[in-house]
Amino acid sequence: MRAVDLIQKKKRGEVLTKDEIDFLVQGYVNDEIPDYQMSAFLMAVYFQGMNKRETADLTLAFVNSGDQNDLSAIQGIKVDKHSSGGVGDKLSLVIIPLVASLGIPVAKMSGRGLGHTGGTIDKLESIEGFQTVLDPETFIQNVNTYKMAIVGQSSNLTPADKKIYALRDVTATVDSIPLIASSIMSKKIASGADCIVLDVKVGSGAFMKSVDQAIELAETMVEIGKSLNRKTIAVVTDMSQPLGHEVGNANEVKETIEILRGKGAEDETTVVLTLASYMAVLGGAFNNFDSAYLKLSQILKAGSAVEKFKELIRIQGGNPEVVDAPHKLPQSKYHIEVKASESGYVSAIDAESIGITAMLLGAGREKKEDQIDFSAGVTMVKKVGDDVNTGDVLCVLHTNRKTWEEASEVCRKAYSFTNAKPKPITYIYKVIR
Amino acid sequence: MRAVDLIQKKKRGEVLTKDEIDFLVQGYVNDEIPDYQMSAFLMAVYFQGMNKRETADLTLAFVNSGDQNDLSAIQGIKVDKHSSGGVGDKLSLVIIPLVASLGIPVAKMSGRGLGHTGGTIDKLESIEGFQTVLDPETFIQNVNTYKMAIVGQSSNLTPADKKIYALRDVTATVDSIPLIASSIMSKKIASGADCIVLDVKVGSGAFMKSVDQAIELAETMVEIGKSLNRKTIAVVTDMSQPLGHEVGNANEVKETIEILRGKGAEDETTVVLTLASYMAVLGGAFNNFDSAYLKLSQILKAGSAVEKFKELIRIQGGNPEVVDAPHKLPQSKYHIEVKASESGYVSAIDAESIGITAMLLGAGREKKEDQIDFSAGVTMVKKVGDDVNTGDVLCVLHTNRKTWEEASEVCRKAYSFTNAKPKPITYIYKVIR
Repeated sequence: MRAVDLIQKKKRGEVLTKDEIDFLVQGYVNDEIPDYQMSAFLMAVYFQGMNKRETADLTLAFVNSGDQNDLSAIQGIKVDKHSSGGVGDKLSLVIIPLVASLGIPVAKMSGRGLGHTGGTIDKLESIEGFQTVLDPETFIQNVNTYKMAIVGQSSNLTPADKKIYALRDVTATVDSIPLIASSIMSKKIASGADCIVLDVKVGSGAFMKSVDQAIELAETMVEIGKSLNRKTIAVVTDMSQPLGHEVGNANEVKETIEILRGKGAEDETTVVLTLASYMAVLGGAFNNFDSAYLKLSQILKAGSAVEKFKELIRIQGGNPEVVDAPHKLPQSKYHIEVKASESGYVSAIDAESIGITAMLLGAGREKKEDQIDFSAGVTMVKKVGDDVNTGDVLCVLHTNRKTWEEASEVCRKAYSFTNAKPKPITYIYKVIR
Repeated sequence: MRAVDLIQKKKRGEVLTKDEIDFLVQGYVNDEIPDYQMSAFLMAVYFQGMNKRETADLTLAFVNSGDQNDLSAIQGIKVDKHSSGGVGDKLSLVIIPLVASLGIPVAKMSGRGLGHTGGTIDKLESIEGFQTVLDPETFIQNVNTYKMAIVGQSSNLTPADKKIYALRDVTATVDSIPLIASSIMSKKIASGADCIVLDVKVGSGAFMKSVDQAIELAETMVEIGKSLNRKTIAVVTDMSQPLGHEVGNANEVKETIEILRGKGAEDETTVVLTLASYMAVLGGAFNNFDSAYLKLSQILKAGSAVEKFKELIRIQGGNPEVVDAPHKLPQSKYHIEVKASESGYVSAIDAESIGITAMLLGAGREKKEDQIDFSAGVTMVKKVGDDVNTGDVLCVLHTNRKTWEEASEVCRKAYSFTNAKPKPITYIYKVIR
């Protein structure tokens, strides 16, 4: 078998066999196939696509390229959740204690963010003392005892995907649905989950800009799950504006507590309840979505899951006092109000621009080595549909940096206004199962 | 400017500027852009194409990446000829003395073959003593004095094209018309020609398998010529069976002498006269094609150009006696007859298979380092349209190798037969100017 013939085959739109896909992935990870052949292959995949079987085989080749977590010592059905990523997306922080409070084991592996804000792991590390490195025994023991634990991803999970992702990033081959889907699903499968709930975001702050694209990605991932015997449900959710009111790290933890107390914004509360309900159904705690949703709504309203969050912080070495005293979370020196220069209804908030604002304030990292400022971020006072008068505060920027003019400008430009009250935003576009 | 953004731009089907193309080509040849980005770019070009302006800019970027021959010391209009390559294509050997005999300067730079048989340079080297390395002064002096000279290509002509071609070869990005066209045209332009006649071959032994493809390639190259102020004419010619009766090196020289004596096969004589006539018109020796064709036909019939070929051999250090005594050309030890196992008319001869036969006999090189056996080759006794009885000799194989079973088998299978006499083959499909 020669790589050049397989590139040619895919270029012509033909279907590769499992052996051919394994040859390419294994050869690449073993440095037998050079970068320049893999990048030509990836570009051919961008144009010609892959069918369901090929995509599942590619996913499996990624999974088999490295370690796989063995979660068999955990009692119960392990349900994992994945988000395709958005601005203000603190949903995993809410969902871990919420779903665990139902007695469903949540064994979460999560990544650090390379982008506007940190990832779930970074956000939790803004809590003083919170440990995201656990030895495997403690991890499993915590899930068995408390029904929850979270760790950073093992460095040898899906090395082929890591190597290919790095290549895609510099060869303009990121935006291919089979490649995105196999990358995401391989990580989830190698993490050892039995069932997977996927939050596929769509809109200005998401990778998928159109609902059709997002549905295609969601369907592709659900198909991979089916092919590889993982019950998988994908929910296509809105990212046309940032989720909730807080974007950053420590301030997203603060908002997590609000949601768990039943005081979250409508958008993120709706999405949390939807994702958590599907997790609860897959985890076997409920027969159907509606009863799960009703029960979880009651839990949020009662605010009882906040105690479970406190427990998560405690068992992972963090200071649980932050839950009742959020001012003990990292605070920035400067707080800058961004005010409206016109009147009307907020018609849109470009989520990506708010993400860039957060980045400019210090909340994210551009390179792996960059330090995150946990206290930096944006509080969005006004959201889509809100009535605004000139001079009203739209956002408050939090930063330790002495210059914020650019951030302030980017933030202001993220807002659009109309005279007529805009139609309410759809939070959930579609569920694929 | 970043290479990844330019890959993305081409991937989306957008048009690159001249500066962007220069950035990619220069960056690649200077090792600032890695192979993996160039190969992804080339694959994007395969799918999205390039417009006329981009293709001309790419050609110019190749030309500017290395040396350019200065032929200004040669009197008259320098007309070059290029063939896209085929089996039994000895036409340059015929055309150099034929066109020079009209007083038109033919300053030929030619390559060695990597394929079924050698290239023009290799074929001439089968003549004892023939030198294909000339210092630039001798080259120009010979063209001024004798109206002809031939040398191997300078090693620093279009280095960007060389580097990119090597990458295309291993990344399945060879068959892209703008890439093929710019590669060919850049070499011709860097060689210093004023006018170019292109022989674009189509059929089983050519790179272009369909007439439409060949016409598209021809049109693209003529457009490049126009954009870069080189008068260019492309002739789309048949390669559905090997040209003439001889395939190899020494035996192609032998057939060259036959053609120059007016005793060549109809197919190759027709193509030679067509190409040479366009060269004669571009070179200013005739006002129109028909009068050039008439005069050149007379020259061939009279056999006078054979003296010009003798002169070419003499001035380049070869033994001119071979012209009158072709048995002084290298002769192989073994001559194997391949006989027909059925009766009928020859309906097709797969040219590529005959090329492979020649290769198996030792006439070509698979790797740069391989030695060519000048005496090896195939004499095709029967061609398309010929009447054949079982046991008739189809071909004679010439080789010094002791095993020829595979070659014989490949050769036999190259022939197809029918009961009805097939339609005559078209030699010239189209002329683009």
